[in-house]
Amino acid sequence: MVPHLVTALTGPINELEQRILESLPATERWFRLEWMEHTPPFYTAVDVRNAGFKLAPVETDLFPTGFATLTDRMLPLAVQAAMAAIEKICPEAKNLLLVPGPDTGEPTFGPNLARLIEIFTQAGLNVRLGSIDPAPAGTIQLPDGTVLRVDPLIRQRGRVGVKDFDPCTILLNHDLAGGVPASLQSLHEQYLLPPLHAGWTVRRRSRHFHAYEEVAKKFAKLLGMDPWLLNPMVAAVGSVDPGSRAGLETLQAQSDALLQKVRRKYKEYGIAEKAFVVVRLDHGHGDGGGVAVRDVKDLGDGVARLAGAGAPVDLIVQEGVSTIERIDDAPAEPVVMMIDRYVVGGGYRLHPGRSGDEPLHGPGARTVPLAFAESGTLPRLGERPGASAPNRFYMYGVVARLAMLAAAYELEATDPDAENYE
Amino acid sequence: MVPHLVTALTGPINELEQRILESLPATERWFRLEWMEHTPPFYTAVDVRNAGFKLAPVETDLFPTGFATLTDRMLPLAVQAAMAAIEKICPEAKNLLLVPGPDTGEPTFGPNLARLIEIFTQAGLNVRLGSIDPAPAGTIQLPDGTVLRVDPLIRQRGRVGVKDFDPCTILLNHDLAGGVPASLQSLHEQYLLPPLHAGWTVRRRSRHFHAYEEVAKKFAKLLGMDPWLLNPMVAAVGSVDPGSRAGLETLQAQSDALLQKVRRKYKEYGIAEKAFVVVRLDHGHGDGGGVAVRDVKDLGDGVARLAGAGAPVDLIVQEGVSTIERIDDAPAEPVVMMIDRYVVGGGYRLHPGRSGDEPLHGPGARTVPLAFAESGTLPRLGERPGASAPNRFYMYGVVARLAMLAAAYELEATDPDAENYE
Repeated sequence: MVPHLVTALTGPINELEQRILESLPATERWFRLEWMEHTPPFYTAVDVRNAGFKLAPVETDLFPTGFATLTDRMLPLAVQAAMAAIEKICPEAKNLLLVPGPDTGEPTFGPNLARLIEIFTQAGLNVRLGSIDPAPAGTIQLPDGTVLRVDPLIRQRGRVGVKDFDPCTILLNHDLAGGVPASLQSLHEQYLLPPLHAGWTVRRRSRHFHAYEEVAKKFAKLLGMDPWLLNPMVAAVGSVDPGSRAGLETLQAQSDALLQKVRRKYKEYGIAEKAFVVVRLDHGHGDGGGVAVRDVKDLGDGVARLAGAGAPVDLIVQEGVSTIERIDDAPAEPVVMMIDRYVVGGGYRLHPGRSGDEPLHGPGARTVPLAFAESGTLPRLGERPGASAPNRFYMYGVVARLAMLAAAYELEATDPDAENYE
Repeated sequence: MVPHLVTALTGPINELEQRILESLPATERWFRLEWMEHTPPFYTAVDVRNAGFKLAPVETDLFPTGFATLTDRMLPLAVQAAMAAIEKICPEAKNLLLVPGPDTGEPTFGPNLARLIEIFTQAGLNVRLGSIDPAPAGTIQLPDGTVLRVDPLIRQRGRVGVKDFDPCTILLNHDLAGGVPASLQSLHEQYLLPPLHAGWTVRRRSRHFHAYEEVAKKFAKLLGMDPWLLNPMVAAVGSVDPGSRAGLETLQAQSDALLQKVRRKYKEYGIAEKAFVVVRLDHGHGDGGGVAVRDVKDLGDGVARLAGAGAPVDLIVQEGVSTIERIDDAPAEPVVMMIDRYVVGGGYRLHPGRSGDEPLHGPGARTVPLAFAESGTLPRLGERPGASAPNRFYMYGVVARLAMLAAAYELEATDPDAENYE
């Protein structure tokens, strides 16, 4: 079920690919050294966009829900990575409680949970589902007829579990956008993965992309290239009501300033395309990926829908990165799935109703496994730049890991338990 | 190029398979806890034999040369395991010197080295070949036309390397059966993997299989079964000249005692087959896998060839385990390849000129990748015992990991640098 993949095989991105492939041992070693200092998130999904002239992450998900896109062939890699992760964090773990997100009604909701159960069972844990939301609870029917049972969470004194199941480890697959429920607070006897501050109650996109900028600069220095080729520029707007005149003006000023910066870069590289920026919420998923803005005059209506009933919202303005990848004529963006520090596979999100410079999230989007799935994580050294899909995927994996590293920086900065040695 | 595989799908082995599959999370957790206390060898290959009524490792190789049997699809798993291993032992590693074994003339000699170079390059190291033997040096031509360059080892003060290449890590693919060359002694500034005492100068099969017996007992207790189903009984004969009358008598007495023990077990389980034992060298590979003995009266000529020109040799007598697996009518035994604690794939050694109760090593043997290669490391839970090749291979992987754990015990016991806390 792997789609025919149209990947543009020319253009400046080939230079970037060549650079990254030439530097493979140096790159892998650099990651190794970074992981000596920083702890990777437990699992991560990164949306990457390849504009043909630059390659950048546009979203880093710390509660990834795309495990159903991992094919059977990718599964051993996921299990091995899960084993490595558990071994480091909680080797004595026996029972794992998986906390699903709210049931969005998406067809991948159940299969994602089933795949996670499979991965962690094979890695050597007894896995049960326990929900913090009213839905899902009861049962989830999978397309293949299997039924998953979801129990309501029970909090007793210092521990959380479900009926007749006392887990030592709780794996959140819930982004906590609605806040942290009491049942998950102050759990000092159990491992909670990822930690609570990885949820959208604490995370901010502005913080993530500033950390990413730092990472991209370091990595670009290692490879001797311009970090912009990997980095989507970002500006934090702060709290504004885009429906108000003052809010709109702030937003216009910020967008205009960023558009100027992007246009200068386009000029520097001789890029003929029309620069654009995306106005996005600083946290959560309520904006469907954001609003693309080509001209500040057009800002009005589009951004007004980002406002919460006239109340101010935290916004960012980010350099827009279009995607040149197409599957069956629909724009597509790679979603790279990682467990611990390892790329374990991925998929393509595609949206037939959108263009390549719009976000591909939301109703109408679907995800398919990465083409050349079984060899997607290893490059073929020595092949001509741009001519090899595995090499292209390796490059996507590198950028995704840079974003994962940025998330590690970000989680360190927001860790409430971090001791301050300065 | 995966052969048609004939696997007997009936018999008592199915009970064992069911037991192991039912206990998957407990088994994986048990391994996790063992690896908290014990360090796995850097890489390991284990020859496993499935007699239909018992399953046992017959050889544990700490300098495995079967990496050429890993298919392209298994490669990502090997690279990820190599990354995990390097990260733990020497994360700052940059240059790796691979020391090949002596060129045996086997067609897999070059391809094995090429595969190792590929794995460790992809894992993020610069890899070069440096030889301690006169051959190979110069170049090795691979079947696909690629040429590998092998440089002679250069020892300068405390470090070893090759011309213009100063490695921080040295990976031995040489079993040191002929002794440890001066160039590899007292290397305190570089990582030497595996350590020198993993070579055949120090290792003894008797020590390994005694450690394995301990491991098998622990694991069998966890699963509530008879350890004999996993354990090939062994007796160390000590140093004898099997060509002398006294030596032959000692050997006959030991063989007879072990044969009695094996026959008792066969009777207990109602096994109609003829029990046999194998007389083997306690160290090194000079015996072509050993001499199978069904009756002590037949001991004479077969074992005489184990003697080194009338000089005494260290021998063991081990319970013979036949193999019921057949590929194209030839007896075959699985060879499970591991890096760090992970099963990364494997192959089948087969020998058309032998029977299923003879060793399959030596001229005429060849190795093919494991059937169902891409899913060989993960079981399919819920399938009928004996009906699923992936489940069978998972069981082989468990037994191979038990033997790897025994090697870890063994290396601890012989570590010259170990501090004695008792």
